[in-house]
Amino acid sequence: MKVGNKIYHTIWLHPENPKIVQIIDQRFLPFRFEIENISTVESMYIAIRDMHLRGAPLIGAAGALGMYLASVEDTKTIKDLKYYEEIASYLKASRPTAVNLSYSVNRVLNVILCTSDTKNVSQNSLKEALAIVQEELNNCKRIGEFGVPLIEKLSKAKKGETVNILTHCNAGWLACIDYGTATAPIYFAHDKGIKLHVWVDETRPRNQGSRLTAWELGQHGVPHTVIADNTGGHLMQNNMVDIVIVGSDRTTVTGDVANKIGTYLKALAAFDNNVPFYVALPSSTIDWDITDGIKQIPIELRDPSEVRFVEGMNNNIITAIDTLPCNCNAINYGFDVTPYRLITALITERGICKATRESILRLFPEKVQR
Amino acid sequence: MKVGNKIYHTIWLHPENPKIVQIIDQRFLPFRFEIENISTVESMYIAIRDMHLRGAPLIGAAGALGMYLASVEDTKTIKDLKYYEEIASYLKASRPTAVNLSYSVNRVLNVILCTSDTKNVSQNSLKEALAIVQEELNNCKRIGEFGVPLIEKLSKAKKGETVNILTHCNAGWLACIDYGTATAPIYFAHDKGIKLHVWVDETRPRNQGSRLTAWELGQHGVPHTVIADNTGGHLMQNNMVDIVIVGSDRTTVTGDVANKIGTYLKALAAFDNNVPFYVALPSSTIDWDITDGIKQIPIELRDPSEVRFVEGMNNNIITAIDTLPCNCNAINYGFDVTPYRLITALITERGICKATRESILRLFPEKVQR
Repeated sequence: MKVGNKIYHTIWLHPENPKIVQIIDQRFLPFRFEIENISTVESMYIAIRDMHLRGAPLIGAAGALGMYLASVEDTKTIKDLKYYEEIASYLKASRPTAVNLSYSVNRVLNVILCTSDTKNVSQNSLKEALAIVQEELNNCKRIGEFGVPLIEKLSKAKKGETVNILTHCNAGWLACIDYGTATAPIYFAHDKGIKLHVWVDETRPRNQGSRLTAWELGQHGVPHTVIADNTGGHLMQNNMVDIVIVGSDRTTVTGDVANKIGTYLKALAAFDNNVPFYVALPSSTIDWDITDGIKQIPIELRDPSEVRFVEGMNNNIITAIDTLPCNCNAINYGFDVTPYRLITALITERGICKATRESILRLFPEKVQR
Repeated sequence: MKVGNKIYHTIWLHPENPKIVQIIDQRFLPFRFEIENISTVESMYIAIRDMHLRGAPLIGAAGALGMYLASVEDTKTIKDLKYYEEIASYLKASRPTAVNLSYSVNRVLNVILCTSDTKNVSQNSLKEALAIVQEELNNCKRIGEFGVPLIEKLSKAKKGETVNILTHCNAGWLACIDYGTATAPIYFAHDKGIKLHVWVDETRPRNQGSRLTAWELGQHGVPHTVIADNTGGHLMQNNMVDIVIVGSDRTTVTGDVANKIGTYLKALAAFDNNVPFYVALPSSTIDWDITDGIKQIPIELRDPSEVRFVEGMNNNIITAIDTLPCNCNAINYGFDVTPYRLITALITERGICKATRESILRLFPEKVQR
């Protein structure tokens, strides 16, 4: 995707030195655009733990490339295979709750364990890590391809007038790979020349909407406006939103969606105003074993300091200010659950389906046996 | 109400010099508690215009006391009555949209115009201004008295366990007079010893919840927790809210309520989870001439800089930081409309009624003829 008219990927190898992985250090966005060079397992661990990068698919890709970096380091000292198991555990501990991380790290670990000639370890692990990156990219691309006709249809119904899309949080190319999930249909439609405009929910308390989604869209040239999270209902009541597209952190096989806190409120407003509400997700977020999102998905309780402190620019310095009275408590739930009944449909890498078990399993028949 | 164990009013005369009006300068809350002395019409104009004080009932009271200050100043120079008409226009222009302001200023102006002996102007205008303050105070008090049984009933149903109340924005004693509207039942219940806890919506973009409501409740000793505006839906889904009480800026005779942006989203969540949703309002906010809130209440579009900049403390200095990417647009609607069908009931100074024309007019029969 474009940053200042130059094409960037979400994670990539240094063009002149393939022993270095490069990422955009998201901690400084949108205030400063900084590329970080990562050449050791430890730096990758820190980059994941301290959220230089975030978003489940990207964390997975980063973990996989972390395993590759271990193999690059290893060429100097020739350690045994036990070493890789330890590295894998170490990397997986960087963000213990991200499912994609352990899945991706294990995949590269298995390839390494199965490589008989130690000379090929580095090459094979790189191949597997890049395959993971490519798969995530393909998923995002397919979500974009399946989603774009929805926007196209709205555009036609409006005779080419601007289609207004509302999104919450960042399910964009900074979190996923190259196109994002919720943003993939938006980027595809924009690149096809469809006139559109995105309402970007600020997404308190961490402001991923105003800091990341607004930055992404702006760099790629997609018209957008940041709104306080309180605003979406009013916009929908007044016919200023044609479609809502959000991402998912975890989806039940019955179609309930856990996503960034506040998503449920937007789904309620969409339902109340007959605005279509879509969730874009790679099937890796589907939990095939649970059927009741509200009862069964544990909601992360995060540090209240994220509510208390807000980060922004003050005299060209990134500054965190304290917004609460002294001794005032805050609480910080990270996600909420949107029940299937409020969701128009899911956009997956296999196509669009209703948010019901029957419809989901029709797209993923190999899961029926479970 | 209490501030650091001392009782304060919302607006009052200087105890040693009745030619000075005193207010809490709300611009610095919750970071600094500062009393402002206002002794001239011009300082009162600036205090209203620059929001040293805000909230419709308080603005009305301040305007009325501004007229009194004019009469105090006048004793030195003895001007004609035309002078008071000019002062009234001047004061009313400080916040042109506040209905209470022009109502209260006109009331004192009429008293002045009807005072035959110029020696009595100052005394009569003070009497009228203080009558206005007392009326607002009485309204808030009655709302508290009518609202407290609702909380009492919930407390009994929970066998004395903590009643959890959610509120949005600041309809507290800083905005209204001495008890607030939405907060009046809360303060009354707390003072009666009922165990309760308040979820305080941060209320972006101006943060009246985290800056004012949290400060008020904290100073008076009411247990409370600040939450991001995104959080209420999740709390209601998980039985963590027993009742929602909010204020109203304007109410249709049919029961639609225009209140701070985001109120509608909380009403939707309350309705979806069978949580009672009450609106506390003095009848002065009822617009007896309009019947469709969404179509007929104009929504104030405020400066986008309120979305862009967030104010807080940085190294003990009140600092505004810029939270958005450069060249990023924001939009800032101040209010939204909650349709009557989502409202359990209204709490007015005459009692509790359904949010319907029939039920409202039963409490205010003198309005039926209109």
